[in-house]
Amino acid sequence: MSEITNRLGVHTLMDEVISRLEKAFSSFSPEVCEIPVRAGFHYDNPRPGLVEWMPCYRRGKSVVMKMVGYHPQNPVACGLPTILSTYSLFDASTGHLQAIADGNFLTALRTGAASAIASRLMANVERGVVGLIGTGAQAMSQLHALSRCFQIKSVMLFDADSRVAESFAGRIASLGLDSFEVSVCPVAEVVSESEILCVATSVGINEGPVFEKNIPIRPGLHINAVGSDLPGKTELPLPLLQRGTVVPDFREQAEREGECQQLNADEIGPDLPSLLKNPDLLPGISDSLSIFDSTGFALEDLIAMEMILELATSLGIGSAMEIESSATDPHNPYEFLNLAPEVLRRVAGRHPVFA
Amino acid sequence: MSEITNRLGVHTLMDEVISRLEKAFSSFSPEVCEIPVRAGFHYDNPRPGLVEWMPCYRRGKSVVMKMVGYHPQNPVACGLPTILSTYSLFDASTGHLQAIADGNFLTALRTGAASAIASRLMANVERGVVGLIGTGAQAMSQLHALSRCFQIKSVMLFDADSRVAESFAGRIASLGLDSFEVSVCPVAEVVSESEILCVATSVGINEGPVFEKNIPIRPGLHINAVGSDLPGKTELPLPLLQRGTVVPDFREQAEREGECQQLNADEIGPDLPSLLKNPDLLPGISDSLSIFDSTGFALEDLIAMEMILELATSLGIGSAMEIESSATDPHNPYEFLNLAPEVLRRVAGRHPVFA
Repeated sequence: MSEITNRLGVHTLMDEVISRLEKAFSSFSPEVCEIPVRAGFHYDNPRPGLVEWMPCYRRGKSVVMKMVGYHPQNPVACGLPTILSTYSLFDASTGHLQAIADGNFLTALRTGAASAIASRLMANVERGVVGLIGTGAQAMSQLHALSRCFQIKSVMLFDADSRVAESFAGRIASLGLDSFEVSVCPVAEVVSESEILCVATSVGINEGPVFEKNIPIRPGLHINAVGSDLPGKTELPLPLLQRGTVVPDFREQAEREGECQQLNADEIGPDLPSLLKNPDLLPGISDSLSIFDSTGFALEDLIAMEMILELATSLGIGSAMEIESSATDPHNPYEFLNLAPEVLRRVAGRHPVFA
Repeated sequence: MSEITNRLGVHTLMDEVISRLEKAFSSFSPEVCEIPVRAGFHYDNPRPGLVEWMPCYRRGKSVVMKMVGYHPQNPVACGLPTILSTYSLFDASTGHLQAIADGNFLTALRTGAASAIASRLMANVERGVVGLIGTGAQAMSQLHALSRCFQIKSVMLFDADSRVAESFAGRIASLGLDSFEVSVCPVAEVVSESEILCVATSVGINEGPVFEKNIPIRPGLHINAVGSDLPGKTELPLPLLQRGTVVPDFREQAEREGECQQLNADEIGPDLPSLLKNPDLLPGISDSLSIFDSTGFALEDLIAMEMILELATSLGIGSAMEIESSATDPHNPYEFLNLAPEVLRRVAGRHPVFA
């Protein structure tokens, strides 16, 4: 992943994700891709968390499975990211595992890209003020993606853990995004000053919202609500959702896991693919409050994985790994016992792996 | 996988799977492991097949995901096994990917082991006659597992593809199982002579059964029905199921995908875990017709994966692979851009991979 990113440049890579994702959203239909609502195991022991699966089938071509872990105590308890994930891509004509890729970076990229696409459709940026509530890993790619689409002049930050807020400027500096000022502020100030607000916290189940309902906001505020991604976990005050237009990435999933959990069916706006296909569904949306309810859509993972495989292939990058142990005889799972290692190596399935 | 198997011996390995699986079935409860019914993408284009996911959560400890492809045209169309699969094991305290293993061999082992356990409970073997209908990859491990639990004297084979039947003796010979005679026979003869019958075919959806309902059978016949594993795919004649006692591995899944699809709820017997806990549920079962409806239970995959990881660790086998790209800062998914490759390598997650 680092070699691909360094070769292409991280901004070019983000532009590529945004461009591919916008095309994919605009042409999405169940006839192109079959995407079930994700499912997973949720638990509190030994620590609160979940492992879930996000499958996506591009009809006639491939299946991408993303396995995702969400463990909010990871950073403090063991220095690991809150979100860990792995992508696998399978050939739908044979079931053959074609490639594996780490999903840590790809998830951040595609989540940022989705917010940038939604913001381009719904935000109204005049002063260039972006607010971030929750300034961990996902906030970095939110800002990175927005910076590719908007002239950002000021970034206002709040995190419940002040050290995570304080470290943000240093982390983002390495991306060379130096056109804006970064300041840590009280949460109310972030909310009331922002033109685009990205919320990406690890707030606990039933512990939201992450800011008060009575904070005044700018009239055309656009919010990317990124952190709400499991039943009971929501970040935004209900009255704010009801005053604005809520656009989910994947409605059925957002109704179970996103901010849409808080809403009645008739309070939910069109989903992002529909809005991209027909922006006239929401005339004047950039002048009023809009909320992108981003639960994380497996279509985004399909696009990210297809992209990384294409780029790696064209750049000649990736380690080939033997995983499938099939040899020459498809009817003999014991065959490897009788083959010399060098023969086995020759015939075994080889899979590019991108770390 | 080959190194572990060669070091331990393939029979010792099979004995280990049988022993662990019997313990796991006997102590299984939803409080120990959470196992949803598997789901997947089913299609006919470009060739008939499916890719499905079989997750299993050992509470408080780990998640094992098996991704399975079933593509019955694989052997003829491209020399690949019909069933391809990959196992991934995740630490449930962090979501960290701990290991990946090929599932081709493990699936064969655990499916054979489950049939051996069921047969030991329900079969009555006097003459030592085992029948195999469908003699591909799965039939090999069915016979291998049975040979670890029964004195087998004669193996009678039938396959719709006579070349696959003819090649069976040569394939199984490499396991050193020389105590029995192997003969290719008409399907009716296999059915009527067997004391244990294993059915593991790639019969098409709605194309079953694979033998006629009126063939006479021996009174205490035990059938391991292995091939029925997706909606519409069944192998056995309904009257036979209705005359016997049907024991599913995982009832809810068998009702959707197994022989149990053909039955009403009140025609289904206890499941294998219940029967192992309490054999008195079916007194005298070895003297009457019994059918093990083996759809493939994710618990079996959990046990297989835990075993292979334990064995590999104790034997010091496996390649370490970097997949997760997390580095030192859990809040910075871009960190790898600024780290020297040797630093990145040191801190990256390393995962044993077993091919």
